[in-house]
Amino acid sequence: SRSINLAVIPGDGIGQEVVAEGLKVLSAVLPQDVKLETKEYDFGAQRYHATGETLTDADLDALKQHDAILLGAIGDPSVPSGVLERGFLLKLRFAFDHHVNLRPSKLLPGVATPLAGQPEIDFVVVREGTEGPYTGNGGTIRKGTEHEVATEVSVNTAFGVERVVRDAFARAKARPRKKLTLVHKNNVLTFAGHLWTNIFNKVAEEYPEVTTEYIHVDAATIFLVTQPERFDVIVTDNLFGDIITDLAAAVSGGIGVAASGNINPSGEFPSMFEPVHGSAPDIAGQGKADPTATVLSVALLLRHLGLEAEAARIEEAVAADLAERVGNPARSTSEIGDALAVRVAG
Amino acid sequence: SRSINLAVIPGDGIGQEVVAEGLKVLSAVLPQDVKLETKEYDFGAQRYHATGETLTDADLDALKQHDAILLGAIGDPSVPSGVLERGFLLKLRFAFDHHVNLRPSKLLPGVATPLAGQPEIDFVVVREGTEGPYTGNGGTIRKGTEHEVATEVSVNTAFGVERVVRDAFARAKARPRKKLTLVHKNNVLTFAGHLWTNIFNKVAEEYPEVTTEYIHVDAATIFLVTQPERFDVIVTDNLFGDIITDLAAAVSGGIGVAASGNINPSGEFPSMFEPVHGSAPDIAGQGKADPTATVLSVALLLRHLGLEAEAARIEEAVAADLAERVGNPARSTSEIGDALAVRVAG
Ligand SMILES: CC(C)[C@H](C(=O)O)[C@@H](O)C(=O)O
Ligand SMILES: CC(C)[C@H](C(=O)O)[C@@H](O)C(=O)O
Repeated sequence: SRSINLAVIPGDGIGQEVVAEGLKVLSAVLPQDVKLETKEYDFGAQRYHATGETLTDADLDALKQHDAILLGAIGDPSVPSGVLERGFLLKLRFAFDHHVNLRPSKLLPGVATPLAGQPEIDFVVVREGTEGPYTGNGGTIRKGTEHEVATEVSVNTAFGVERVVRDAFARAKARPRKKLTLVHKNNVLTFAGHLWTNIFNKVAEEYPEVTTEYIHVDAATIFLVTQPERFDVIVTDNLFGDIITDLAAAVSGGIGVAASGNINPSGEFPSMFEPVHGSAPDIAGQGKADPTATVLSVALLLRHLGLEAEAARIEEAVAADLAERVGNPARSTSEIGDALAVRVAG
Repeated sequence: SRSINLAVIPGDGIGQEVVAEGLKVLSAVLPQDVKLETKEYDFGAQRYHATGETLTDADLDALKQHDAILLGAIGDPSVPSGVLERGFLLKLRFAFDHHVNLRPSKLLPGVATPLAGQPEIDFVVVREGTEGPYTGNGGTIRKGTEHEVATEVSVNTAFGVERVVRDAFARAKARPRKKLTLVHKNNVLTFAGHLWTNIFNKVAEEYPEVTTEYIHVDAATIFLVTQPERFDVIVTDNLFGDIITDLAAAVSGGIGVAASGNINPSGEFPSMFEPVHGSAPDIAGQGKADPTATVLSVALLLRHLGLEAEAARIEEAVAADLAERVGNPARSTSEIGDALAVRVAG
């Protein structure tokens, strides 16, 4: 018999509510012989205000013991911008070497999209998660004066780029359409751009069955709204991935249904699964948040742990639930969670 | 009597065709007492292949003598990515201190958009044009090896940020809705982000009549497709501006109608006006390119030179022409130019 030892981080705002539903569906979908153990952690704004801590070395040691991490959302207007993002979320992604930031986009039948004509959308973005402009390199001189200079350094390594490009090629090869798009801005960011492009082209030689293309990030935003069906797998850097996956979420049903996995493929550290949305303090505590993105993140978590059948059952349940929403009255966070739990159990 | 001494750079691909129509409409709209002198320059792929030159010091001296520059498009697949972009376009923007990169987005009646429900779109992006990740700072070590490291340095100065933020506030104040949105990623790029945010908040105190908001760049892409009507003026950095203005063009009629101005507000150097689209080599020479974006760039050029009535006449002609396109057979590049020339002259 198997067991899953899960770290649960509800976090701030709607994080609490959506994680509760994610766990509800997780419990319902797991077969009898898989034992689920969970431990909750109190990271987020409250702990920061109480202790000044965002994520300590002891925290990292504790988290390291788990098989995976389920995160709701971190962030609150009471905390200055950047403190929790850099001090918790990015610190964790970097510490646990979550270099594959996986963000699938699929427009399910019946789901509303801002795009006209209900296009076919089914692609996955493999966003690099440990390099690029996210490293925190850079600094400020003469702060607050008229002579202030602030820099941000994007750091890109052959090691870091090659491993995520390889991951993306493997994913593309495993999909029916077998197509991989590199998104960058290699005509302006020529140093990083050439590194990405050269490695992409080199690895492509090992994958003759995968069709490849290169698109500048600015043009990619155009195609995401005019021809989203052209994409199958996209590989891109940390910042471009951040930007295009929010747009991808918007066109494929909204951030209420956008899931993500921060994956350490080697398994050396636990991977972390979280909805793409934030803590949405404006609607927190009101039962208005859609837990679907968290539930779909649980599916990614199960797939990562090898429980493919259970992951697929969650995805089918979500598809059926979304199709039924059309024309029906809005439900609360827990009503949606209940409905999904019933579906996956049945 | 006035005169306009215009530098014309047709460039590559469809650049030749669309610039011809832009000049046609310009000649037609100008009053008798404004003398138009034009001088054509041969920058682009052909000259690069023939001479290895992209833009020399002598070229810059020559261009400096003009009142303004009209550019078609530069770029060709026969030239490695980055060579003409960095060696010509960005070199010119930086040399002539085009720090206000102005990109209006307006969805005109009858114009197709990929968005459902034909939303109201009428905003302008003030993109910083001389700093940020576009400076060419950075480098590569151990190139081509498994230990390669490539960096890109985003350079942001109080001087550079304040002048573009002030320009944006002045534009917002002059518009009916008086709203200005700062787009950045200050929760991750904390050094540059704090510089932008602090200066934005400081200048805001001088503009109590302007409503302000801050939006992360990733969220901005969501709003551009779900609530584009929320935007009036947007100010943002060079790279974020590049990305969101392509998306903005896509939702407000496509890059066939997206105009831009690379503006040096002090007039120390000539400003440059160009369509947002590229050289589109796949359709070059076939009379298929839509010259509307270039014609609208001519309107921005005229407004910059103080010829407001003529600029407005062009914009009205374009609006009327676009409304008439619905349901009618497609016209060639020169047919559209002819129709617009007739309208502005009438
Ligand atoms: C909250 C923020 C640091 C984060 C990011 O930029 O990666 C978020 O936008 C995301 O996409 O997960
Ligand atoms: C061609 C390229 C260098 C340019 C840019 O990135 O600024 C283009 O995309 C634009 O937006 O004018």
